[in-house]
Amino acid sequence: MGKIITVGREFGSGGREIGRKLAEKLRFAYYDHEIVVEIAKRTDLATEYIQSVEEKRPFPLMNITTGHSFWASSNPVMDQQLEVLKTESVIIKEVAEKSDCVIVGRCADYVLRDKDPFRIFLYAELEYKMKRCRERGNDPKEMSDRELQKHMMQIDKKRAEYYAFLSGQKWGAKENYDMCINTSTADEDKIVNSIAELYL
Amino acid sequence: MGKIITVGREFGSGGREIGRKLAEKLRFAYYDHEIVVEIAKRTDLATEYIQSVEEKRPFPLMNITTGHSFWASSNPVMDQQLEVLKTESVIIKEVAEKSDCVIVGRCADYVLRDKDPFRIFLYAELEYKMKRCRERGNDPKEMSDRELQKHMMQIDKKRAEYYAFLSGQKWGAKENYDMCINTSTADEDKIVNSIAELYL
Repeated sequence: MGKIITVGREFGSGGREIGRKLAEKLRFAYYDHEIVVEIAKRTDLATEYIQSVEEKRPFPLMNITTGHSFWASSNPVMDQQLEVLKTESVIIKEVAEKSDCVIVGRCADYVLRDKDPFRIFLYAELEYKMKRCRERGNDPKEMSDRELQKHMMQIDKKRAEYYAFLSGQKWGAKENYDMCINTSTADEDKIVNSIAELYL
Repeated sequence: MGKIITVGREFGSGGREIGRKLAEKLRFAYYDHEIVVEIAKRTDLATEYIQSVEEKRPFPLMNITTGHSFWASSNPVMDQQLEVLKTESVIIKEVAEKSDCVIVGRCADYVLRDKDPFRIFLYAELEYKMKRCRERGNDPKEMSDRELQKHMMQIDKKRAEYYAFLSGQKWGAKENYDMCINTSTADEDKIVNSIAELYL
């Protein structure tokens, strides 16, 4: 079994970049958007659609297992959404078998819970995340500060709901992770080194 | 102004040892029980009494500032308790001025919030903490597992209440810290190196 590091992250905290640098440092494979592309290949669905499914929980009150038996074949839209989630789980498990890897987001810490992943969560103050979004052009349609703040909070809310839907646990609660870092504390390289120091 | 690292910790997570090793590595002064001894010197109170005050919030519904103006001179026991807390704050600020330091517990992160401390929180699964307590003889009176669990949870509850009383914030919520580490993840030296890597 390969070594697995999962990276949960608040939107704008820099999780993607830190995950990639960590993978480079450790010479691990890196998976983020690659998983969406692979789901698209297997399901013949558009990557945009897959991302939209990832960003909402498909059924409000049940988790992925109990949910399926209830509404399978009664709701084609939900069936398709569930297919995306199931394919995602399959792919995450496949890539984790293939080689040592860093996986960003997608509840990988929960999906791979039986394989003892090293679970990181990255977060930061809102002001820092907003500044970072502005600098990187991740603020769609020239939003006002208030609009950007709302946009960011909505994305995190969806991530939290998706995580709760799959795992029944609270997204970002430190008890579910091995290490949580406020990314406004230090630069990316220091954060990567600090994670590697604890992990290796 | 000196460099300051504060270490919040769940009972049994190893915060004291990690804090001490971190201070040694960085050649910072280390403060933990030393603060209690200094309060005892200045107030002429017994260290046991001071520790008992630290482990409970002296007034249920107000913080240290508003509380004082309300019940000063109306309740000698509470006045004495508040005196302990105020002396503690004064000493924490004094030692932080004197040299670079690591301070364990005692809401130092909040007391020193204007001095931009590097704020760590250490936690672990209950099972790990219980095993650690047993190994170190920190399980008073040969407690049963259930009794030890209750004992540990009570101490953490008191720490949380003390923190909430002083700061109005939630003890152990990652948003109040720069880095949170699950101490069952790695050995003490790795944890110390990881903190130093992020901080330096």
